[in-house]
Amino acid sequence: MAAEEWDLYGRLIKDYDGNYTYEGINGDRLAKRFHAISEIGLTDDGGSRRIGFSKEEKQAKDLMKIWMKEAGLNVSEDGAGNVFGRLEGKDHSLPAIMSGGHVDSVPNGGHFDSPLGVLSALEVVEAWKETGYQPNHSYEIAIFSDEEGARFNSGLTGSRAMAGEVDMELQRTLVDQDGNSFAKVMEDIGLSEESFAEAARDLSGIKTYVEIHIEQGAKLEAQNLPVGIVSGIAGPAWLEVDFIGVAGHAGNTPMTERQDALVAAGDFVRTIHQLPGKVSDSAVATVGKLHVHPNGANVIPGKVSLIVDIRDIYADTRNELTLRIIEEAERIADNCGVKANHQQNLEVTPVPIDDERKQLLSLALEKHDIKPVEIPSGAGHDALIIGHHLPVAMLFVNSKNGVSHNPEEWSSLNDIVQGVHVLKTYIESID
Amino acid sequence: MAAEEWDLYGRLIKDYDGNYTYEGINGDRLAKRFHAISEIGLTDDGGSRRIGFSKEEKQAKDLMKIWMKEAGLNVSEDGAGNVFGRLEGKDHSLPAIMSGGHVDSVPNGGHFDSPLGVLSALEVVEAWKETGYQPNHSYEIAIFSDEEGARFNSGLTGSRAMAGEVDMELQRTLVDQDGNSFAKVMEDIGLSEESFAEAARDLSGIKTYVEIHIEQGAKLEAQNLPVGIVSGIAGPAWLEVDFIGVAGHAGNTPMTERQDALVAAGDFVRTIHQLPGKVSDSAVATVGKLHVHPNGANVIPGKVSLIVDIRDIYADTRNELTLRIIEEAERIADNCGVKANHQQNLEVTPVPIDDERKQLLSLALEKHDIKPVEIPSGAGHDALIIGHHLPVAMLFVNSKNGVSHNPEEWSSLNDIVQGVHVLKTYIESID
Repeated sequence: MAAEEWDLYGRLIKDYDGNYTYEGINGDRLAKRFHAISEIGLTDDGGSRRIGFSKEEKQAKDLMKIWMKEAGLNVSEDGAGNVFGRLEGKDHSLPAIMSGGHVDSVPNGGHFDSPLGVLSALEVVEAWKETGYQPNHSYEIAIFSDEEGARFNSGLTGSRAMAGEVDMELQRTLVDQDGNSFAKVMEDIGLSEESFAEAARDLSGIKTYVEIHIEQGAKLEAQNLPVGIVSGIAGPAWLEVDFIGVAGHAGNTPMTERQDALVAAGDFVRTIHQLPGKVSDSAVATVGKLHVHPNGANVIPGKVSLIVDIRDIYADTRNELTLRIIEEAERIADNCGVKANHQQNLEVTPVPIDDERKQLLSLALEKHDIKPVEIPSGAGHDALIIGHHLPVAMLFVNSKNGVSHNPEEWSSLNDIVQGVHVLKTYIESID
Repeated sequence: MAAEEWDLYGRLIKDYDGNYTYEGINGDRLAKRFHAISEIGLTDDGGSRRIGFSKEEKQAKDLMKIWMKEAGLNVSEDGAGNVFGRLEGKDHSLPAIMSGGHVDSVPNGGHFDSPLGVLSALEVVEAWKETGYQPNHSYEIAIFSDEEGARFNSGLTGSRAMAGEVDMELQRTLVDQDGNSFAKVMEDIGLSEESFAEAARDLSGIKTYVEIHIEQGAKLEAQNLPVGIVSGIAGPAWLEVDFIGVAGHAGNTPMTERQDALVAAGDFVRTIHQLPGKVSDSAVATVGKLHVHPNGANVIPGKVSLIVDIRDIYADTRNELTLRIIEEAERIADNCGVKANHQQNLEVTPVPIDDERKQLLSLALEKHDIKPVEIPSGAGHDALIIGHHLPVAMLFVNSKNGVSHNPEEWSSLNDIVQGVHVLKTYIESID
């Protein structure tokens, strides 16, 4: 998409019928703000490039700070670069409600993941301002740093820093693709390793966190629904499996005398594809990364290394699935006369959303005549980290064709505005 | 293995009982010559590094030239660097018998593939000289250039040049790992593209070619036999298969909505492993090289590219196997909701050895009290290329543990000397 053709505002407004602009929520304002953020780090093919801890991410946060101040919020920033905008509630004895997201992106991402989270959280404040409403609970907008993790192949960095879930020893060893250390990256945006380590916050002052995000899937689209309830946020478990056979000459080794690591790995990939549905409706398992050694066309593979990404929104079913996958690796290796080694390298505890929060979200959707459906989130979000410490809730907005992390990422302004209404209603309904 | 411990001669002689040294064939001379060649391009771990068209390959050829001249042969070299040593037979009207091999190696190869071929061919001449025997047919030793193809990822280069099987247009585009063009590589050893193109020889002056080679497999060892008959030389066919699915988020895409290219490829690899035995006893099929795209742990594979190396000593069964493999690719792709594209990139016609030659080899083995067994050659040899133009024969010598292309490659001197006896008897038996 050529730069002169670029106009996210115009594209958002084009199909907007304005019917959902009431109670102070303003689709035109939202569209203008989406457009303004989209111009920061705009890529040649019309995508977003605002890597975590980059000057583009900082620029987007600075713009959000201006709007938050204009909306009357008390703006602050912590040592990890997380930005907060606070509105005092009527009752100072009550803990605050927090909502937000992030403004960093993958290297050539879209314009909705997740300006949607922070702009929606801000639009709720704008609506309150226009209608003269003051909530009982104080309200905080959070803009978390480096959610995508594109810089250090990590992710959820800002929320982990706030929640005290960072292993600083590991964090200090990180080096980005340009060879910059974590310390250097922090310094370049006016932060430091020390300030980052001090970002951990006492979360007792926050009652709950709610995040609105694009679905990144096509279930809402299939049912023609603008907004849905997230039933839980899957935590990934990464299982590294090595199949170890014996390399040999592809011409001289009879089929019956082979210990071919790829025959075992192939059977494994195909077999575990059938397993998630046997354990849980929301479980998934994927072999996305696989290397063959020595990987020569005329050499029988001596070793195959792969990673199984296993997810569910419930820890018990995810763990059961992991065990069954390990059993299959061992059974198949035995059958093929090879060995299987495995190691679990990453394990993030999943966060099912509790019934009380799903009930409130459901009432909020019904108030806006939207059928409440529940969808598990396979992707991680800042709400996953915060959910380890506080009750959290999430809403999904309809994603066109389920496409995400791509310039083609799209949600209609009609659906977005309905999402903000549901978010606002939900926040107002919290006791 | 430290250089000061290096002594191939001593290792060969250690277990040699000398019982097979008669009729002018001399195990001690053979061991000394194996040792002398092994010192050219000796690697730190006791292997051979004599890449095709390197100064080490040339040095080994030069040493062979000295020995051939000492044995009374008329030595010549063609424009591809192939070296010939010719002994005139009694009857000048008869076409010559040719035997030989190559002295180049893979980058860290062993000491038998294939000094065995050229030293055995020469030992036959030495034996004739000692016993005062002159064959009816003229006899030529051939030392072919760059059989292994380690320099340009090709192979059988010298024999292809002699047989006129080189596509010069393609040959001129080759570049080695150091960035040297084919022309530069030729110049560095005193040859040229032009001389190379002129190496094609009228083969009507040659009646047949015979090559003795290590088995590179463990069938002779399993039967405790020193020498065996090669039933045919498999020509590889390389089938490139791409499975094309749809990349997606490993968390957000339900299992039932995936078009996972690796699930299809995995099923394919496992399935075609079962096929060769259904088509032919000597057929093999191997997926040694496979790449996943984009190969991210949390991304459903959108594409898998792989190569199937399909071999048999008979063209019809190899072609039948290739067709069945293509059918499986299409069937499995259909089942998995992905697409399969295929392309055949390499196809070398296999060479079954004719009955007349196998019969003569069998008689030669029986004369030396060796049970004649037939073994297919899955690997390619110069005899494969020459076999497209002339009747050829091959003998295999027992390989310890079947190991080849490795410093551990080993054949005992007892077995080698018996191989030379069989080779000599066979050559003498040709009308």
